[in-house]
Amino acid sequence: MDTHPLDGGLALECFGQGEWRGKTSPHYGNMIGPFGGFIAAAFLKSVIDDKRRTGHPVALTVNFCGSIADGDFIITSKLQRGGKYTQHWSLELSQEAGVRATATLVFGARAEVFEHQVAKMPKAPAALKLVAMPKNALLKWVDAYELRFVEGAPDFTGKAFDHLRSAKTVFYVRDDPPRPLDYLSLAALSDCFFLRNLHIRGTFPPMGTVSLTTYFHATPEELNRQGNAPLLAVGDCKRLNGQFNDQQIELWATDGTLLASGVQVTWYKQ
Amino acid sequence: MDTHPLDGGLALECFGQGEWRGKTSPHYGNMIGPFGGFIAAAFLKSVIDDKRRTGHPVALTVNFCGSIADGDFIITSKLQRGGKYTQHWSLELSQEAGVRATATLVFGARAEVFEHQVAKMPKAPAALKLVAMPKNALLKWVDAYELRFVEGAPDFTGKAFDHLRSAKTVFYVRDDPPRPLDYLSLAALSDCFFLRNLHIRGTFPPMGTVSLTTYFHATPEELNRQGNAPLLAVGDCKRLNGQFNDQQIELWATDGTLLASGVQVTWYKQ
Repeated sequence: MDTHPLDGGLALECFGQGEWRGKTSPHYGNMIGPFGGFIAAAFLKSVIDDKRRTGHPVALTVNFCGSIADGDFIITSKLQRGGKYTQHWSLELSQEAGVRATATLVFGARAEVFEHQVAKMPKAPAALKLVAMPKNALLKWVDAYELRFVEGAPDFTGKAFDHLRSAKTVFYVRDDPPRPLDYLSLAALSDCFFLRNLHIRGTFPPMGTVSLTTYFHATPEELNRQGNAPLLAVGDCKRLNGQFNDQQIELWATDGTLLASGVQVTWYKQ
Repeated sequence: MDTHPLDGGLALECFGQGEWRGKTSPHYGNMIGPFGGFIAAAFLKSVIDDKRRTGHPVALTVNFCGSIADGDFIITSKLQRGGKYTQHWSLELSQEAGVRATATLVFGARAEVFEHQVAKMPKAPAALKLVAMPKNALLKWVDAYELRFVEGAPDFTGKAFDHLRSAKTVFYVRDDPPRPLDYLSLAALSDCFFLRNLHIRGTFPPMGTVSLTTYFHATPEELNRQGNAPLLAVGDCKRLNGQFNDQQIELWATDGTLLASGVQVTWYKQ
């Protein structure tokens, strides 16, 4: 079986404790440089592959400090502290120009205790009843996913809408080609959202992700159960002002289990 | 005028570039050790006081690696990268036992551009029509705030509820004694929530905050406008499972402006 592009792209080489060499992937490109979700997954991979790692991912924050160029990068990780229940990591991604992104990762020991899901998956028709979005030459990462919009399909004409539209989008998403879900693909999928300015205004002001936080609610069993079936993705926003806005996301399993949620902060110029 | 306990507690002493000496405050204690919101504010203070700092806070993530003892601490900060629009900082808080907390901070240049608030403040009676919560001897930080519950007042008997209750809480909160709102108090206020397990189940399993992220939507003008009037605070949760749960928060100005939002991850044992 061929290596999936995500696994090919994330094949990091260890050259010391907490020192990893990687390379951006042509399959996961953005308008300029790599797709942020790929960088998030690369940070996560460097810890998952580390012999010191215990438990499963709980929280990942990636801060994008500077533009990342296509090509080689180095990830360094520091295990800040490991206890019985949690492990805390601090990470940096560097290129020749210096540090380009930083991250913190919390891993946790999962155990069966009191469980309660408060949030509810929105109602949506079955994924295969919906048309898949056409591929997008400008954004390579869009080709790496199959997106089927339920609500708020983007309009790429770049023409400002007459009236502001809803910030909320609902769509199905899965890797293309399909790939069994794991924490790495979940990390990448958490950035698989068009920025809110496009959905609300219809326009493309200069904009980019500044900070990306993902909370992994899923247990390994829940990921296995989902396999390569499409996830239901919900994106929304609370406020855009003063050159920054938030973006709230949720990723749902077919059976209504919330697998991940998160928030990103986007900078925009106009 | 007397120094406010928050300002007294946050009086950090600089002993080198990005090197600060601080002390926990008896006014901001938790069940054990300091209130997390105080630590968040201390991290923020170390950057606000730094000569290299430009812009205003946009995003703050604090990861609590190990229990913080009452007493002295050291904060070290590294300016990872500063550009025209954003500044990225990585920080560590250490005590004799080693690194106890890490943080990342994004500062941003605010400018008047397209603005749109999507989220809406929940309806609530005026703050002064509601009874202030009694002080709480177990949790010193509760004494440092005036809390008036609109919805979901906590029950401290520790007896499990017959039925699970709503995860959502709505309350007014302000510093006690009152203090004009600024980014420091906003950072502390973002942790001013009782953990969701208590609200949902009525019980106190062993639990603690693992990661605390705050997004600052407010401009300096909006903070000034609010002054020392109570903020409307909304807390909620998406999912509790496998020893971890999220907590979603919003802090609203009297005029309906969303000043801050955020998410924390809590560990719980049973």
